Amino acid sequence: MSVTNTQKTAGVIIIGNEILSGRTQDLNVAYIGKSLEKLGIVLAEVMVIPDVEETIIDRVRSYSSNYDYVFTTGGIGPTHDDITTESIAKAFGAKLIRHPDAVASMERYYEPGTLTEARLKMADVPEGALLIDNHVSGAPGFQINNVFVLAGVPDIMRSMFDALMERLIGGPPILTASVFTNLTESRLAEGMKQIQEACPAVSIGSYPYFKRGELGVNIVLRSVDESLLSKQLTLITTLIEKTGGVVLEEQR
Amino acid sequence: MSVTNTQKTAGVIIIGNEILSGRTQDLNVAYIGKSLEKLGIVLAEVMVIPDVEETIIDRVRSYSSNYDYVFTTGGIGPTHDDITTESIAKAFGAKLIRHPDAVASMERYYEPGTLTEARLKMADVPEGALLIDNHVSGAPGFQINNVFVLAGVPDIMRSMFDALMERLIGGPPILTASVFTNLTESRLAEGMKQIQEACPAVSIGSYPYFKRGELGVNIVLRSVDESLLSKQLTLITTLIEKTGGVVLEEQR
Repeated sequence: MSVTNTQKTAGVIIIGNEILSGRTQDLNVAYIGKSLEKLGIVLAEVMVIPDVEETIIDRVRSYSSNYDYVFTTGGIGPTHDDITTESIAKAFGAKLIRHPDAVASMERYYEPGTLTEARLKMADVPEGALLIDNHVSGAPGFQINNVFVLAGVPDIMRSMFDALMERLIGGPPILTASVFTNLTESRLAEGMKQIQEACPAVSIGSYPYFKRGELGVNIVLRSVDESLLSKQLTLITTLIEKTGGVVLEEQR
Repeated sequence: MSVTNTQKTAGVIIIGNEILSGRTQDLNVAYIGKSLEKLGIVLAEVMVIPDVEETIIDRVRSYSSNYDYVFTTGGIGPTHDDITTESIAKAFGAKLIRHPDAVASMERYYEPGTLTEARLKMADVPEGALLIDNHVSGAPGFQINNVFVLAGVPDIMRSMFDALMERLIGGPPILTASVFTNLTESRLAEGMKQIQEACPAVSIGSYPYFKRGELGVNIVLRSVDESLLSKQLTLITTLIEKTGGVVLEEQR
């Protein structure tokens, strides 16, 4: 979908050697993408970068200038390879402070006497940052300017994302409609192209699939305008039927 | 792991609105990351971008200059939203031609008479490009300069990636060793930091996990030097035992 001038945009930076090496499968992009869509915020770009300070500083600065909101995941744990917090503080020229509310939050999750110095490192945030609650394991994320710094572990990331959503100002939610058919993509290509070109305000995506040995296509329509979306959906289902196909499933 | 001067590097560009919207879960980064590691090529950065021509052109040019190898996935199908091939041709100032070997490959996969114009669009590649075999559905990927243009559907992407691997010149394979323990990350943090600092040639990553309700940590060591890797692995298992933990699983 084309981005209009009034639409808010976001960028996501996934920080972690383990994603680049293929050892860990990222699951956070899909969650953030879906959540932003409901808020009417367009996820414009995602980057996966290694745990390297100068790379983190450079990319965070660039995304912070280019997008309304930036989300980072990963690298805020207690070990030597967790360098995200310190790097982001440097990106904004802020010093690290031990945040008393972060310490208090962690005290509620850890047994007395087990809040070691290594763990307390997770209570250090750039001066002036706003904390982001973590209802899974206590150690919070934080927000500095338009950058939201989240954990990499999916359960914790989701808890933090849900907690920060009220701080985001979105737009009209991006509505989607989806049709599955038994036709192959290429048989619908020319008709879909014409339907798309006649109405750029509804973006039409086409995704081939294999299901129980059957080839088919999933057509996805996206728009902020409900009546245009309905109109285009009707054109697509009519196209499928005229081409001799079956509408297997329709989702709104 | 820090990149040495002699190590080859790669960048991956995932092209597709459906990944950014969270509708489709990317599975290609992990496959490419693992495969490159075996070849001794460092995956330095990944980007996910929308199906927008100027974005594709800009990012492909920039990655092509910055990395030894670039892999793109997605957007090479037959429909109106498949604009990757055309955009990459423009990025390199090449014109599109219908490649006879691509047509011949598709003829082997399609019933006679079903190679429509929409399908034949998939046989168009930038002039001078080398084809990349697709043993799943016939329509090939292609290589232009140091950029390898692959399908987005994981089965097809893997077939293409396996077919192109012989064109990549790697380095010594990156060896990994992995230890699981029942200790939490923070109890090992200080010891791991010392072991890491004493030997930068072996990178040590630490990844907390939850498994059957139990909290623990997976420590991953990576290096091109087998004897240093062994030495550091021994230091890590000794650290775990001295800290009162159990080495649950060791993988080489």
